[in-house]
Amino acid sequence: MKAVRLHAYGQRPKVEEVAEPKITKPHDVIVRIGGAGLCRTDLHIVEGQWKDKSHVKLPYTLGHENAGWVHAIGSAVEHVAVGDTVIVHPLISCGFCRHCRAGDDMHCSHGAFPGIDVDGGFAEFLKTGARAVVKLNPKTRPQDVAALADAGLTAYHAVKKAIPLLYPGTHAVVIGGGGGLGHIGIQSLKALTAADVIVVDRSEAALDLAKKCGADHIVPANGGQVAKVKEITAGAGCETVIDFVGEGGAIGDGIAMLRRAGTYYVIGYGGMVNVPAIDMISQEINFVGNLVGTYNDLDELMTLTAQGRVALETRIYPLDAVNDAMDDLDHGKLHGRGIFVPAAT
Amino acid sequence: MKAVRLHAYGQRPKVEEVAEPKITKPHDVIVRIGGAGLCRTDLHIVEGQWKDKSHVKLPYTLGHENAGWVHAIGSAVEHVAVGDTVIVHPLISCGFCRHCRAGDDMHCSHGAFPGIDVDGGFAEFLKTGARAVVKLNPKTRPQDVAALADAGLTAYHAVKKAIPLLYPGTHAVVIGGGGGLGHIGIQSLKALTAADVIVVDRSEAALDLAKKCGADHIVPANGGQVAKVKEITAGAGCETVIDFVGEGGAIGDGIAMLRRAGTYYVIGYGGMVNVPAIDMISQEINFVGNLVGTYNDLDELMTLTAQGRVALETRIYPLDAVNDAMDDLDHGKLHGRGIFVPAAT
Amino acid sequence: MKAVRLHAYGQRPKVEEVAEPKITKPHDVIVRIGGAGLCRTDLHIVEGQWKDKSHVKLPYTLGHENAGWVHAIGSAVEHVAVGDTVIVHPLISCGFCRHCRAGDDMHCSHGAFPGIDVDGGFAEFLKTGARAVVKLNPKTRPQDVAALADAGLTAYHAVKKAIPLLYPGTHAVVIGGGGGLGHIGIQSLKALTAADVIVVDRSEAALDLAKKCGADHIVPANGGQVAKVKEITAGAGCETVIDFVGEGGAIGDGIAMLRRAGTYYVIGYGGMVNVPAIDMISQEINFVGNLVGTYNDLDELMTLTAQGRVALETRIYPLDAVNDAMDDLDHGKLHGRGIFVPAAT
Amino acid sequence: MKAVRLHAYGQRPKVEEVAEPKITKPHDVIVRIGGAGLCRTDLHIVEGQWKDKSHVKLPYTLGHENAGWVHAIGSAVEHVAVGDTVIVHPLISCGFCRHCRAGDDMHCSHGAFPGIDVDGGFAEFLKTGARAVVKLNPKTRPQDVAALADAGLTAYHAVKKAIPLLYPGTHAVVIGGGGGLGHIGIQSLKALTAADVIVVDRSEAALDLAKKCGADHIVPANGGQVAKVKEITAGAGCETVIDFVGEGGAIGDGIAMLRRAGTYYVIGYGGMVNVPAIDMISQEINFVGNLVGTYNDLDELMTLTAQGRVALETRIYPLDAVNDAMDDLDHGKLHGRGIFVPAAT
Repeated sequence: MKAVRLHAYGQRPKVEEVAEPKITKPHDVIVRIGGAGLCRTDLHIVEGQWKDKSHVKLPYTLGHENAGWVHAIGSAVEHVAVGDTVIVHPLISCGFCRHCRAGDDMHCSHGAFPGIDVDGGFAEFLKTGARAVVKLNPKTRPQDVAALADAGLTAYHAVKKAIPLLYPGTHAVVIGGGGGLGHIGIQSLKALTAADVIVVDRSEAALDLAKKCGADHIVPANGGQVAKVKEITAGAGCETVIDFVGEGGAIGDGIAMLRRAGTYYVIGYGGMVNVPAIDMISQEINFVGNLVGTYNDLDELMTLTAQGRVALETRIYPLDAVNDAMDDLDHGKLHGRGIFVPAAT
Repeated sequence: MKAVRLHAYGQRPKVEEVAEPKITKPHDVIVRIGGAGLCRTDLHIVEGQWKDKSHVKLPYTLGHENAGWVHAIGSAVEHVAVGDTVIVHPLISCGFCRHCRAGDDMHCSHGAFPGIDVDGGFAEFLKTGARAVVKLNPKTRPQDVAALADAGLTAYHAVKKAIPLLYPGTHAVVIGGGGGLGHIGIQSLKALTAADVIVVDRSEAALDLAKKCGADHIVPANGGQVAKVKEITAGAGCETVIDFVGEGGAIGDGIAMLRRAGTYYVIGYGGMVNVPAIDMISQEINFVGNLVGTYNDLDELMTLTAQGRVALETRIYPLDAVNDAMDDLDHGKLHGRGIFVPAAT
Repeated sequence: MKAVRLHAYGQRPKVEEVAEPKITKPHDVIVRIGGAGLCRTDLHIVEGQWKDKSHVKLPYTLGHENAGWVHAIGSAVEHVAVGDTVIVHPLISCGFCRHCRAGDDMHCSHGAFPGIDVDGGFAEFLKTGARAVVKLNPKTRPQDVAALADAGLTAYHAVKKAIPLLYPGTHAVVIGGGGGLGHIGIQSLKALTAADVIVVDRSEAALDLAKKCGADHIVPANGGQVAKVKEITAGAGCETVIDFVGEGGAIGDGIAMLRRAGTYYVIGYGGMVNVPAIDMISQEINFVGNLVGTYNDLDELMTLTAQGRVALETRIYPLDAVNDAMDDLDHGKLHGRGIFVPAAT
Repeated sequence: MKAVRLHAYGQRPKVEEVAEPKITKPHDVIVRIGGAGLCRTDLHIVEGQWKDKSHVKLPYTLGHENAGWVHAIGSAVEHVAVGDTVIVHPLISCGFCRHCRAGDDMHCSHGAFPGIDVDGGFAEFLKTGARAVVKLNPKTRPQDVAALADAGLTAYHAVKKAIPLLYPGTHAVVIGGGGGLGHIGIQSLKALTAADVIVVDRSEAALDLAKKCGADHIVPANGGQVAKVKEITAGAGCETVIDFVGEGGAIGDGIAMLRRAGTYYVIGYGGMVNVPAIDMISQEINFVGNLVGTYNDLDELMTLTAQGRVALETRIYPLDAVNDAMDDLDHGKLHGRGIFVPAAT
């Protein structure tokens, strides 16, 4: 089958023929890919940022945001059948460790992460595990939801953590709210809380998308954003910042927007969280790291999608156009989320 | 009356005669000081670290950890009477703002903080408010509990936040556990949780105090502390770090001790929290700032003290010896907590 | 001034002339009533159900849901001024007890409850305390919001407790959802959660109001309601029941609608919660009592009202028509909420 | 092998020879029983109380509190090996449903409960699943811990829920604290909280055991228990009641002991929770049902046991003496917990 393979850090991946995956264990599941999302993390992997974290052996197949149809199942798989439409939770979790049993399956002690540390879904078929597949309504088109498997799920997960802080009258600042994750974050905030949502973004197109997604206030990141957030919040600052950028000056600006006892959700990465300890204690502020959400989070997000409360902006590419898509993303030309649809589908 | 007054940043305070405070509002309370704790923050104030945060007008009286006896009350004060033994919550809170009403009185929007932004308790008398005084058993000696008003309260407050993470089998690392706040932190952890407590400290005397306070493991901060914590936790790292140092290499070491999804409580300050955003997200770790606790927290801590579960190590100084005490603290010669007892008491 | 006074249990109150209230303490506030809501609790008070709970001395003035304009203030009142439009939290809380300090001011150890245990707001003027008045936009008409002070606040408070259970895909059953409290409950659920709201009510008019308020499913309480809820929830039952009726067969039906580990919020009263302990443990279900909410809850509810997300159905009566209004409520002829507007206003 | 089988409701079980269980699925585990606890639920099963809840087909083998050594494993079992010492979580959970994934495995949608709805552990061998076995230190004697698998786990689970309510200065009343579950409840309360523990029990021997387990106050259930609890709590009542009896007058008494906003944990059963809705709302009290705890809870309890903080009082019986043991339990002659040890062990 055709697959997008990374052969060396610092070099773009190649599209090539590889063997199809096979069922080898009782809980294996093979999914025929209907859509696979392109993520900024894919660029970071190519750059080598994840080299010492994933320890993956090159070459391997990229792609960690996958949806499609069940193609084959292991002998002990009971809750999905061949032909079912599914979205694929990014982590193959064990179901036996403390984390899996505590509802934190994304911290599974024995997990594998296709597209990060084993072969992913920029291909015609993907091998995953029975605990990773969420069954969908058969009418759902995998290409419409694939990028919710990781990007959307991460945004949703961070928003869920913030719910107790976001009672009526509070303000949630979303930095980078018009991007691929950010616009899901806005929709999740509007679906799950009664807070006012303030979106800060650099590009006008992104701010337009934010507005369309339900942002209550849009603020261009033109240097005046801290002052503008203070103005909107009557001088006090906001209860939460949800930061989908995490580089450039975004983090410093975000901290300046926070009010006493506020909480900063770090999602975007690339930069440093660099804050004097005295500021953390005198204001009693918190910084919360955010990884992808749990299987249950993904199931809930699929419910919101089915109800029409969350929808992805997408742009479709064939697998062969992987490098065009990466260029578009890298140069800020890709609004919403890039999705690969294998040619045969 | 005699008071310890700061006249200029960068210069040690002076002991001098000033007028006694007077009742001017219906909820004012004047306390005759029986004990006032010396805190590393007093050194930081003298150095000027708080200048742009407190905006206090010099000269003023230091001292934010106070206990004594009620000397005079305003016309509307009902829950304490002249002669009552009291410990003084550091903040004079309003009782009307969102924070006060939500149980976060230490974030009061209209609060005053004696010893930080108005005259404090390194003096014979202190003016505070009715909402700040906690009535104690008349047998309690103010000098035995005074430093719990801020140092102990901060430690207790951080430990209380950590309770949900510290189920049986988990590990809490306490950096600087043998110091003035740290040894209260250890005792609070042992009283409120079933976690194993690992104390990291530089000095042998501090580690001895930690052991006496109930630490399950003591680890000298001699360069091998990260490895030692990993060994104790079977390679995984600890669920929480409670950092009472917050400078030197303590923060970097503490982060290295944390396990996936772990939480770092920042209490000591002076240094920077400086961590790549990618580490925060790939491990999904959190940083929690910690200010002093609430009035209810202080009340609970006084219960633990009365039950004998928490006890302060103290060393008594007369007010006139303020600079000797500051020298001792600055040079690491003060184990436990320095307490000023006005001569007349 | 004119006031509605209860002289004897079992007899309807009388409208009569009484002296206006006077400021006597530094935190007293006198409010000129612009609207006062009639509540089923007023009927229960007249019946004598509250006699042994309130210990109020007869005669006294009814009315515990009040809004209007500040008419006079005590010497220490700072956060409102004469002329301000305000809604009145039902409890005059002390601000000093553990409950007030913990954010549970509705459990104040020294509180007074105008309309329940001291003179209430079915009158031209009401005496309350500074901690009880929430300042509103001057354009707000007191008669439009008065009933939110208690009825709406109770509904909002129960919904807030239920938020963590009501993630996307869950179902909240609202029994009596078309009544005076219930229709605020529905709107609060829609504003604060993404759950599907199923309203069960006896009357068609009530179900129509529920639908207008955003109910996702309406179910007539005609004997088939348990089966219908099971059908809507695919046989599993619902995660939460919020019961605004609490008498007749409502409680038994509600329990039968609950799924494993579900939670039942008791708000309406009159009947018995009567459940075998074995059913509570084998299903691990919970019963949660609900009193009025906190001051902060009321402030949040006023935000939702100002944003147009929550609106009351009301019917205006003059004070003199108190017994007509009580008849209408008692005989099920009052849809939405009855509001008294003193003639002079 | 020898097994204790129930043939008809209302008749005592018989000891007889049955076939040994066999491995049939990849995640099956067969445990050689080292100890199996006798529970009041076994009496209730014999009486028929569980007939319409478990729908088990008679005859079947009783015994839901089991520990021993792994005897055989299915092909996909990786985390335990033959010969390992294990305690058996009572539920064979699926690992795929919402509840399992959310950390509530005791509510598994597809679970089986050996001893309740399939063959249990009053036998030489027990068939369970890989997700149910907790590996222990090989030095642990199964007969010393077996009854923690269900009785102890239920007590621990209820205590864990109560932690946030039990800050220093609060009171936890434990009704039936000297019984088989209750004495684990007391030890768990002392290990996990700083609350004062008040034990109410009928028998002097039970109160002695309670005292030995760390109870701060013991109160005989002689009719004066409500007054005594009020006295200990200075008239206010207690923050929580944890009720291991749940029949006779225990529930009514327990409700009378509760303070405003208090919570009642129902564990023992047999009686009715019967409370006027008006009392639930005017006091805003809660009733929480309690089933057995999760696998992670059991793992934590095993940590407390290994640390010596929780220990079971036991009395050993051979399997053949099942009816003697049941008589002893039924007639109040069994203090602590009866444990069956198969003869061959």
